[in-house]
Amino acid sequence: MKIVLMDSLQSGQCNIYFGDGAYGILKSHLDEKEYSSVFILTDSNTAMHCLPMLMDRMPGLVSARNIEIPQGETNKNLQTCLQVWNTLSEQGADRHSLLINLGGGVVTDLGGFVASTYQRGISFVNIPTSLLAMVDASVGGKTGVDLGALKNQIGVIENPELVLIDGSYLATLDARQRRSGFAEMLKHGLIRDRPYWDSLKTPGSLERAHDSIFKSVQLKNEVVMEDPKEGNLRKILNFGHTLGHAIESYFLESGGQEALLHGEAIAVGMVLEAFLSTVQSGLPMEDCEEIKKVILHVFPRVEISVGERDAILKLLRFDKKNTGGAIRFSLLEQIGKACYNQEVTADQLHAAFEYYKN
Amino acid sequence: MKIVLMDSLQSGQCNIYFGDGAYGILKSHLDEKEYSSVFILTDSNTAMHCLPMLMDRMPGLVSARNIEIPQGETNKNLQTCLQVWNTLSEQGADRHSLLINLGGGVVTDLGGFVASTYQRGISFVNIPTSLLAMVDASVGGKTGVDLGALKNQIGVIENPELVLIDGSYLATLDARQRRSGFAEMLKHGLIRDRPYWDSLKTPGSLERAHDSIFKSVQLKNEVVMEDPKEGNLRKILNFGHTLGHAIESYFLESGGQEALLHGEAIAVGMVLEAFLSTVQSGLPMEDCEEIKKVILHVFPRVEISVGERDAILKLLRFDKKNTGGAIRFSLLEQIGKACYNQEVTADQLHAAFEYYKN
Repeated sequence: MKIVLMDSLQSGQCNIYFGDGAYGILKSHLDEKEYSSVFILTDSNTAMHCLPMLMDRMPGLVSARNIEIPQGETNKNLQTCLQVWNTLSEQGADRHSLLINLGGGVVTDLGGFVASTYQRGISFVNIPTSLLAMVDASVGGKTGVDLGALKNQIGVIENPELVLIDGSYLATLDARQRRSGFAEMLKHGLIRDRPYWDSLKTPGSLERAHDSIFKSVQLKNEVVMEDPKEGNLRKILNFGHTLGHAIESYFLESGGQEALLHGEAIAVGMVLEAFLSTVQSGLPMEDCEEIKKVILHVFPRVEISVGERDAILKLLRFDKKNTGGAIRFSLLEQIGKACYNQEVTADQLHAAFEYYKN
Repeated sequence: MKIVLMDSLQSGQCNIYFGDGAYGILKSHLDEKEYSSVFILTDSNTAMHCLPMLMDRMPGLVSARNIEIPQGETNKNLQTCLQVWNTLSEQGADRHSLLINLGGGVVTDLGGFVASTYQRGISFVNIPTSLLAMVDASVGGKTGVDLGALKNQIGVIENPELVLIDGSYLATLDARQRRSGFAEMLKHGLIRDRPYWDSLKTPGSLERAHDSIFKSVQLKNEVVMEDPKEGNLRKILNFGHTLGHAIESYFLESGGQEALLHGEAIAVGMVLEAFLSTVQSGLPMEDCEEIKKVILHVFPRVEISVGERDAILKLLRFDKKNTGGAIRFSLLEQIGKACYNQEVTADQLHAAFEYYKN
């Protein structure tokens, strides 16, 4: 007899299960709920690399139908939703159907939104396959798609029935994808847990990121559970994201530069916002230097011209975290402690880009 | 000093206020919440006829911005949502903005969906201006848009901050629009309250519908409050709607026939489903005859050919109320008492159309 030890976390109404034992839970859940039909949403990558792994572990899903969307952030939009909604309709999905989202953040964010709005909401299960989706998108119920250049502008907050995190899928990722998820893990340390940051900054930690997934999810979950509706505290999770999102949007839309992965953009945003933290919220400059050094060691510096900088700053106006026109940042007071609703000046923003550049 | 007597109903987290005094409540609400910006969604009709009335009563809304969509059910789709989402984005709407939906069911359903998904949800207030929207869409938090021929296929359940029902707007409706709302009022009597049905079947009650709005909203609200998630009881509100929606969809899409208003289609659906109730759930034939007579007195018989009947029955397959392929109806046991999850045969469906025809 084999005893499976399994980690799990409770996140509001939703449970997150880790490792091989999670498949048994999912199987029991399917048996119990007796869904009228099951659909598996993948992108073109995860259809090829992850779907066979899932089917190996869950042969009972043989009658589930696969819906495949094209891979990449540029397809995280309403046009793709329309295709999935139409396919669900044509295939007779009803209110008691289940959608399993198997993929990175694009698939779990978009799939969660599609499920939450199809016939006013059907159940969904998330199986994140990228490091980023495991440590970030897996907790908090944020679903959504982009509206033009505006990231996640359309969406709802809705939790999946359960989340299944299996590190085996990470073997399907290339190095760049893996690094992208690592940026969010660094963030979790920076905003909440200095010892965790210290452990992540040691050599080889990117390669061992697998071992820290549980810790990162746990840290994020603590924040989300204290403030599920993003009234206040949850805003600290946006550290690096105010400028990071604008940079990501700009690179996605401009056509001039190659698109950045989410974590790559957030890495730039974290250095910029660490600098803003030194002038605004008391982060010691030596901490800021440490952050810059660690991040630039993992994420090579991105060239941003002065013209591009202006275009990026224009996009800030549309950020969802703003209220009444003022641009608010979540910043650091020290490594391991964050604050929110910080306003900065245009001059400080330009100085931050100069700091990153040199 | 003028004392305003005002009716109000509580519907979950949402309050529904009736009559002139409601504007004072809305004004206090706006003062208290200090929204960063206020938008008023109208269609081309309500922009012309209802917006000036609202501005007369709420001069404080002078700085609110109007977003106008084209009128009519054919525009209750994702393309229109996209236009409103884009306009909100361009005008700098943020998470603390408010959307006031001023219009019939298309405006309140679509506006509620747009607000509930913009930046993962902003606040909205509904001011229904049609009889149908006042007695039906005002309660229960159903929002949504059509997906091709499929009515309300995409949406969420989300309550407005408050609902303001002012019968003065009914003066802007033509007779056909008013009649459309009356169909839902008849339904409220049929499924829940025989004395109410008896009062509505007396001559002139359509012209006096204004006086019965509160009663209809109250009846619907009782049902919704007992079963907010449409697990069971709430399904009785679908009486007349399973076939009614299919008929509405067919006439909307076919191009061959002029589109029916929602209530006009539901009126046909109620006669058909009253017949199904006689063979399936024990409705006495004399009650069925009474229902047919009263409805055909208000709503002239719609010609439906055998070919059209087949096309309509095909659309049933997609109805949201179905589970696992079976088509379930909400039917009557007697006038004033409904049941749900009733299955009928294809032969019975055809017989119902024959009954309606003769």
